[in-house]
Amino acid sequence: MPNFADRLLTAIAAKNAPVCVGIDPQYDKLPPALRTAAPGDAAGQLARIAEFCWGVLDAAAPAVPAVKPQSAYFEAYGAAGVQVYEQVTAWARQLGLLVIGDVKRNDIGSTAAAYARGHLERPEGTDAVTVNPYLGADGIAPFVQAGAAAGRGLFVLVRTSNPSGAYVQDFADAAGRKLHVHVAELVARLGDGDGLVGEKGFSCVGAVVGATYPDEARLLRRLMPRQIFLVPGYGAQGAAAADCAACFRDGTGAIVNASRSVLYAHENKQYAGMDWKSAVAAAAKAFAGDIRSAL
Amino acid sequence: MPNFADRLLTAIAAKNAPVCVGIDPQYDKLPPALRTAAPGDAAGQLARIAEFCWGVLDAAAPAVPAVKPQSAYFEAYGAAGVQVYEQVTAWARQLGLLVIGDVKRNDIGSTAAAYARGHLERPEGTDAVTVNPYLGADGIAPFVQAGAAAGRGLFVLVRTSNPSGAYVQDFADAAGRKLHVHVAELVARLGDGDGLVGEKGFSCVGAVVGATYPDEARLLRRLMPRQIFLVPGYGAQGAAAADCAACFRDGTGAIVNASRSVLYAHENKQYAGMDWKSAVAAAAKAFAGDIRSAL
Repeated sequence: MPNFADRLLTAIAAKNAPVCVGIDPQYDKLPPALRTAAPGDAAGQLARIAEFCWGVLDAAAPAVPAVKPQSAYFEAYGAAGVQVYEQVTAWARQLGLLVIGDVKRNDIGSTAAAYARGHLERPEGTDAVTVNPYLGADGIAPFVQAGAAAGRGLFVLVRTSNPSGAYVQDFADAAGRKLHVHVAELVARLGDGDGLVGEKGFSCVGAVVGATYPDEARLLRRLMPRQIFLVPGYGAQGAAAADCAACFRDGTGAIVNASRSVLYAHENKQYAGMDWKSAVAAAAKAFAGDIRSAL
Repeated sequence: MPNFADRLLTAIAAKNAPVCVGIDPQYDKLPPALRTAAPGDAAGQLARIAEFCWGVLDAAAPAVPAVKPQSAYFEAYGAAGVQVYEQVTAWARQLGLLVIGDVKRNDIGSTAAAYARGHLERPEGTDAVTVNPYLGADGIAPFVQAGAAAGRGLFVLVRTSNPSGAYVQDFADAAGRKLHVHVAELVARLGDGDGLVGEKGFSCVGAVVGATYPDEARLLRRLMPRQIFLVPGYGAQGAAAADCAACFRDGTGAIVNASRSVLYAHENKQYAGMDWKSAVAAAAKAFAGDIRSAL
């Protein structure tokens, strides 16, 4: 299997769309036509969520190279929900989409290796996962090893897009160097190992860098030249396409995520009168065009 | 449902055992009698793992008040593994054990709330979970709310027991204050909210503090007087009972975890000649006695 970074950048180029759609299904936000489960009927809700996910994947696939299912919305339903998460991954593959599992897993040694086995080594696993760096290199290395061996990858949380992330991530040393810069240096180092950098010059070890802080993104782009940036924060979280541009290197090496603005496009006046699937298709296309035009 | 801290401290007092057993099942380490799955037969391995977990719970229950299943070893088998994780939780409850789900989840806003729903609000969820603080208060608050409402709780990672955790957790500001101290202050503040502190003076918001650094544990004990400490690092990871004692406040307010030294007691010469279940029972009893005698 080729390097994950090469696979992702090739898929982005093929659709000329450096974007992915976050699959964050909340039953209460589904299009009215799908909110037919009886109150308290968790299995019924989950069935409607599965139907919704299939529709979103099918509608978005022509416009985007990848999707990012968010594990939390499936785990909310326990093991039955995780089964749907696996179905979503399988369906996305059938549609030719790459799958980035937003799981933010973290642990050490053999425990981290067990997460990596489930999420990156098994054929049913995803093409990449997000990983939290609080435990240091011990918590990241097992994902790097598993990913590299399987042509899969990871995105380490460096700077998240939420306000209170600053309490931890902007904690600064005597020289004014912030923790997220310190973490970026670790990620750059771990991603530079033997066999990790692909033919296009990027590593299978990427970084999550929020679009809400473009000045920081420019600094992080310099510190992590070989990391593909997975960029949350566009749309519902307040960042514009121009803000996201700071995460790219010569127009490449980043993938911007949008979740709610695409999933729930039926709520957007711009798409009034369309059925929900057509609204998702239109929003995915508009999102890709918006990012493309900012580069 | 009473406050989680009261429930846990009552359960600890009832067995006079401030300890829990980590349920970290690795197929390759199971007792030989259970390693009967054909090579590559994941479903067969998982069935043997389930059998092992049941045996461990049954053997350890007389000696300990709680268990800590590690989600990674179940997720290694995908959704089918998560189903076994839920079974382990249900079995532990039948045996009167509290269940701390070691999931180290983390995300923000409605996504964190979805994790909290799955792991702390559903009846099938666990009594508490571990949570990673890299995203700041936004990533912790939804678990606090869900836990408090359901008589359940959480343990926020403050200082982990692995060597490379220091790269992030010991990152220090101009005054020499380390990040884990900064995080401890956040945890103490979040745990002090209305209705979170129980009758015994401890909060349903606890902290993970590794036993491998007793001096740090003493400082953290002062900074987080109302947090119950969940203490990894005993046994296989190198910490002795005396090291763990620094995590207690007047002999209470902490629970020490051991995983491998109890689960795989059949490998220990001390228990040679015993069947594996008897070895687990003996190791769990010895572990509880060792911690008790150090207080």
